[in-house]
Amino acid sequence: MTYCVGLLLKKGIVLLSDTRTNAGLDNIATYKKMFTFEVPGERVITILTAGSLSVTQTTLARLREEIEDEDATPATSILLAPTMLKVAEIIGNTLASVRKDINSKMNAEAVPTSASMIVAGQRAGGDMRMFLIYPEGNFIEATEDTPYLQIGEHKYGKPILDRVVTPHTSLEDATKAVLLSMDSTLRSNLSVGMPLDLAIIETDDCKISSKRRIEAKDAEFARMSEAWSRALRDGFRQIEI
Amino acid sequence: MTYCVGLLLKKGIVLLSDTRTNAGLDNIATYKKMFTFEVPGERVITILTAGSLSVTQTTLARLREEIEDEDATPATSILLAPTMLKVAEIIGNTLASVRKDINSKMNAEAVPTSASMIVAGQRAGGDMRMFLIYPEGNFIEATEDTPYLQIGEHKYGKPILDRVVTPHTSLEDATKAVLLSMDSTLRSNLSVGMPLDLAIIETDDCKISSKRRIEAKDAEFARMSEAWSRALRDGFRQIEI
Repeated sequence: MTYCVGLLLKKGIVLLSDTRTNAGLDNIATYKKMFTFEVPGERVITILTAGSLSVTQTTLARLREEIEDEDATPATSILLAPTMLKVAEIIGNTLASVRKDINSKMNAEAVPTSASMIVAGQRAGGDMRMFLIYPEGNFIEATEDTPYLQIGEHKYGKPILDRVVTPHTSLEDATKAVLLSMDSTLRSNLSVGMPLDLAIIETDDCKISSKRRIEAKDAEFARMSEAWSRALRDGFRQIEI
Repeated sequence: MTYCVGLLLKKGIVLLSDTRTNAGLDNIATYKKMFTFEVPGERVITILTAGSLSVTQTTLARLREEIEDEDATPATSILLAPTMLKVAEIIGNTLASVRKDINSKMNAEAVPTSASMIVAGQRAGGDMRMFLIYPEGNFIEATEDTPYLQIGEHKYGKPILDRVVTPHTSLEDATKAVLLSMDSTLRSNLSVGMPLDLAIIETDDCKISSKRRIEAKDAEFARMSEAWSRALRDGFRQIEI
C-alpha cells in the first residue's frame, strides 16, 4: 500500500508521500510516488499516486508523452491546460483509460487493478487547487471545510489531521502535521515505508517552493517521532479518568 | 461498522465496544455488541461482535440455545466447555455454520455477509485468555507480544494502543487507553457511535468485575475526550521541526 497526504492552506500546499511498493510481503521495493511538473512562475502541478504501480507508472508515462507531443493542445497536455480543473480532468481521463486497458488484459486472471491520485497545484492567475482522483477518473476537490486529502492507508493518520489542521494552519505546522500523520501510519502499517518525499508549494509561487527527501536514518525525523511519542505518553499519563 | 477492542493484561481483561449498527446511512440503530456469560467464580466469557447483525445475533442465539439445551455437553455448551480454547472453538464453529447458512440464502443476491468476534474470559483453574474469531471460524489468540485484539474499524485507534499498552499496563491505564482509542475512532468514522459498553474482568475473579455503559452525554467521557484533544494539541505545539 501507500500513504500520501496533501493539505490545501491559505499559505500554500503541503504534500507528503511514502515510497514503499510491495507485491506480496517478499517483494518490497522503493518507488517514488510524488511527481512534479512545472513551468516556474507560470504553473506547478504535483501528482501523488497510490495503487497498482503498473497503472500509476503508465498513467504518468502517458501524461509525459502528451506534454512532449509536438501536437499537444490545451485539451491533452497538463502543461497547456487553461485551469487546474482541466488538469484534473486530463489526469482523471488518462488514469481511467489506463486502468481500462490494463484490466482488459487482466480479466482473464480476475485480478482487478486500481489506483488513485492527489493532484495539487496552481496556474498563474488562478487559485491553488487540490483534487483527489478516483480510479474511475472522477474526482473531488479540497475545500475550506475539508482542507486535506489522503490516499492509500489513510485511517491511522487521520485523527491528528482532524484535530490540528484548518485552512489557516501555518506551513510549518502543516509540515509537522503531515509528518506526524505519516509517523502514526509508519508505526502501525508495514506496507507504508521510508524514505518520504515532502514538497511545499507556497501560494502564488507557481513553483515547488521546497522539496525534501527524508531518508530512513533522518535524525530530524527520528527526533520528531520520538518527541511525539513522548508527548502522547505524557499527555496520556496526565489524563484522569 | 463497529469498533471493539480487548486488552489482555497481567491484572485482567479490559473490553470496550461501540453500539452503532447501520444498513446504509439512513438506517442507523443502537445494538449492544458486548455479551456476557458467567457462572460467577467458576467462569466468565465475554463476546464482542462486529459485522452483519443477522450473523452475530443468530450466532449468539444458537450459543444460548446450546447452553439451555437439556442435553448440553462440554462439546456444545460454552458454559460446560473444559477450557477457554474449547469455548473459542465452539463459538468459531457456530459462527462459521451460521455464516454458511445465511450466505447460502443470500447467494442469489450476491451480498456476502460476514462477522468476526472477540472472545475473552477465564475458567477457574485456567488462565485468562482472549481470542479473535474470524468469519471462517478459525481464530488467533492475544499473547504477551500482542496483548490487544481489535475488530471492526480498527485503524484509527491503533496508534495509541501501539504506544501505551503492554501486558503490565494497569487496569486504570488500560481503561483510559481503550477509551482514547475509541475516541479517535468516533471522531474519524461515522459508522462507529455512542453509547459505549465497557467491561473489566480482573484476574482470577472469574466474573465481570465491573461493567459500565457510557452514554452519549457522559460528562466524564466528554471531559476525558476534551483533555486528550488538548494534550494532543499541546504536544503538537511543543514539537519542533
